Formats: sequence, C-alpha cells, structure tokens
Amino acid sequence: MSLHDATAVELIGPGRYRATIAAGWDIAGNANGGYLLAIAARAITDATGQPDPLTITGHYLAPGRPGPVTVDVDIARAGRRHATASAIMRADDRPLLVALATTTDLHTASGPERVDRAPPVLPAPPDCVAVVATDTFPPPFMGQVELRLHPDDAGFFEGRRSGEPRMRGWFRLPHGEPIDAHALVVATDAFPPTVFNADLPVAWTPTVELTAHVRGLPTPGWLACAFRTRFITGGYLEADGEIWNGDGHLIAQSRQLALVPRSR
Amino acid sequence: MSLHDATAVELIGPGRYRATIAAGWDIAGNANGGYLLAIAARAITDATGQPDPLTITGHYLAPGRPGPVTVDVDIARAGRRHATASAIMRADDRPLLVALATTTDLHTASGPERVDRAPPVLPAPPDCVAVVATDTFPPPFMGQVELRLHPDDAGFFEGRRSGEPRMRGWFRLPHGEPIDAHALVVATDAFPPTVFNADLPVAWTPTVELTAHVRGLPTPGWLACAFRTRFITGGYLEADGEIWNGDGHLIAQSRQLALVPRSR
Repeated sequence: MSLHDATAVELIGPGRYRATIAAGWDIAGNANGGYLLAIAARAITDATGQPDPLTITGHYLAPGRPGPVTVDVDIARAGRRHATASAIMRADDRPLLVALATTTDLHTASGPERVDRAPPVLPAPPDCVAVVATDTFPPPFMGQVELRLHPDDAGFFEGRRSGEPRMRGWFRLPHGEPIDAHALVVATDAFPPTVFNADLPVAWTPTVELTAHVRGLPTPGWLACAFRTRFITGGYLEADGEIWNGDGHLIAQSRQLALVPRSR
Repeated sequence: MSLHDATAVELIGPGRYRATIAAGWDIAGNANGGYLLAIAARAITDATGQPDPLTITGHYLAPGRPGPVTVDVDIARAGRRHATASAIMRADDRPLLVALATTTDLHTASGPERVDRAPPVLPAPPDCVAVVATDTFPPPFMGQVELRLHPDDAGFFEGRRSGEPRMRGWFRLPHGEPIDAHALVVATDAFPPTVFNADLPVAWTPTVELTAHVRGLPTPGWLACAFRTRFITGGYLEADGEIWNGDGHLIAQSRQLALVPRSR
C-alpha cells in the first residue's frame, strides 16, 4: 500500500475524519510516529484547504495499532496565506495523538535566501547500507520506506555502535511513489533512533513530541537525511533532523523529544 | 510587575482561565510571543496539576495587546508522569495563540547522561552589552528582563551587523526574581531577532510557531543563552536556541519558525 493510500482520510462529519492505521507500518506492533502524524496532517490540510503542513507538532499519548481511527480537526484561524488547526486522533475513543499545525501553499513561497549549513556528506545510495524489513528487527515499518544508511552509522545492526548518536542516510518511497509534504513528515521519523549509535544502555526511545517544519517541496529521487542527538539528560533526549533535496536544498527540519527508558 | 504576576491565571470555569496581558511587555505595541506562551503554559500546568511545561508549542494567530484574555485548556491525557493539553488564548473572542504542551515534574527527572555540546563562550556579564528598554527601540519588553549581549553580537544597535545571524548573551529577571520553567519559556523568545545580525533587508520576523523544551530547572543567577539561524529560505527562517545554567547544564532548547517579510 502506498504512503498516500495509507494516510488517506475521509470526512464523515463537521471537522471529523475517518482513517485507518494500516498493518505493516509498525515497530514492534506500534505504528510509526511520523506515519500517525502524517495521517493527522492529511486531515488538517484537507480541513484548512491549504495543501502543505508548514509546521506541525504531535504529542504522542498512546501507541497506535492497525485499525480504524477518527481525527477531529478544530480550525483556530484560516487566513489567506496560513491556516492553523489542532487535531486529535482517537481509536475507540482512546486518544493516541494530539497535533497542532499551520498550513500553507509552499508553491508560492519566496523570499531572501541565506543558508549557513551544507547537506550531509553521504556515499552514493548503492554504497550505503539498505535497511530491510523483517517481522522483528529491523521492524515491518522499514518495508514501507526505502532507507540507505551511511556505512559509518549502520554498524549497530551487527552490534557495532559508532559511539556518535546520529543516523545519516538516503530516503525515498518504494515503487517510485512521489514524496509530498505529508510524506516528508513521515521521513522526519523514519530512521532508526540516533541512540542506537550511542554507547548507552538504551534500547528504545518513545517519542513524547515531534515537530516538523516543511521548508520546501521535494524533488524526485533520493533525499539526503541527517539526524543527531546532542543532549541525553534527565530521562529525555532530543533528536534534530534535516532533510535535503538531491539538488542541495533543505526541505525539512525536525526535532523530537523522546523518553530515555533504562533498558532491562 | 514581576514575570510571575504578569503571567498569573485565574480559573473562572471548567478549563477556562482569565489572565491579563500586562502593559509594557510589548515590542512596538504587540506583546512578546514568549510572554504570551508563558501565560498559556501557566494555565496548562495549573489545569494538568504538573508543575513544569516539558515541551510546549505555540502557534501565533494575532498580535496580543494589553488587556484581559481568556485561556481555554483541553486536557487530552493525564497520566502519572506526564499530562498533555492544548490551550487557546482569546481576547474578546479573537484567537491570539494556540498552544500544545506536555507537562511533568522536572524535580523527579533522572536518566543516563551524554552531552555533545558546550555552553556558549561569553564574556562575563559586566563585559557584555546591556539592553536598555525605551518607548521605541529597544522596545518596552526589554525592561521586563535583563539581557547582556555578547559584544560581537551587539553592534547592530549602532548599525553594525555582525553578518552572522545569531544572538548570544546572558539572561536573568530584574529584582532577583527566581526563574522557573515558565520564565524559561519567556527566555526562549526574549533576545533580539537573530536576523538583526544578518546582511539582509529584514526589519522584523513575526513568529509563526515556537517550541520550547524545558530540560532542567534553572539555578540562581545569570543564564547563558545562544540563538542561531541557519536557514533563511522561501520567506521563512528558523531560530534555534539553547539556554544553559551558570553551572554548565543545558536547561532549555527552543526552535521557532518565523516569517521573513521583505522590508519596505
């Protein structure tokens, strides 16, 4: 199933959408967080009539399992250029996710340009390490996206952590599916956790909050991505992400705050 | 008026709070965005019964002027360790701000520690440049906080932009007022815009969205702060902030997305 179909929403009442968490988009049974946020984004862009989530924040309340959900959208303001709305996703009245977004049409974006950062330096995709989905680890979700990890960041699969809490690599969708602004939201949470490369006894990092800024529209082909954690303190960590077009333009930034449970 | 008093909220109905945007917390007549978000945070922490905004996002809909506002808080989930709620601030039924936050008690935070960043290197506060409020520029808001800017970043006051879109300096509250997690939310938006140091024809950058992560509790004294913009593209910019205790511990991170209007 394409990402577009797996994030489809259907209006069933005033501000109320029906969607389905598809099977196979999970990590150990729980739906990927970026995927859930993209469903909420689809409902918000539909409700506001603006095509692109410019900035969206999700707070995660409970794990999402395959099956039907509702998304209730509440528009706070709808202007000519921007609209702002919150949304809550529920499964059987159990809240899974609250989101807050401002939407716009990125095709019309223009302004002065100054960039003080370069894209990540990555070997070409064939020289990177493909992440292949399994029933356990790597998780089924990895079958819904195509990742090629920087070889220096991929040793953790064989127990060799790089010691640097980062993940760099290429992202695209299978079967040549085009990447739109909603798919970029998925991309901001599609890579293995940065902490898999830290020398710490941490096995998983459930997301508390994820914010994505969509700064431009993707061009066809692989996207260059880099995720990095600088602060693991007090039971939490942040992970900062950048997503770049093949032509060297930044198209998304993300930051998430995650829990750092002690393992075992 | 102390920051604590200027952000006070009073419960007036189920989930509904009354507050007052105080005079003198403005930039050119519009209330500072971090100040408005701190009022929303006060309502959310009161409603959820958790003392600290761990992560809070605000989307700005209309400028805030001095006078009464209401804040309606909607709790999505209240757990033992975390609670999540959204809030909308209105003046005369006109929405000013929508916020989404997860709250906790940071006194109980613990976990493994790994930090890959150092605090900003700043001259001692007496060797930095004090920002003094005026009726115009610097704006009245600067009288509500105490800022000491790094001399390399303060030349813009005399028309000498550093060429680097960043602002570094010290923050504290006047009259020895203690800084709590809510005041940290103010600190994330208290410095002059980073773009004042860029060689671009940009005079102001209205905030679309501001997210603050409160990662620790402040110790008494000056806080070391650094704000930096890396991507000015397509009519938007991001500004990333870090706030550090005097003892060298990171206590807050922030990122905002702002509009980059062309000036004149």
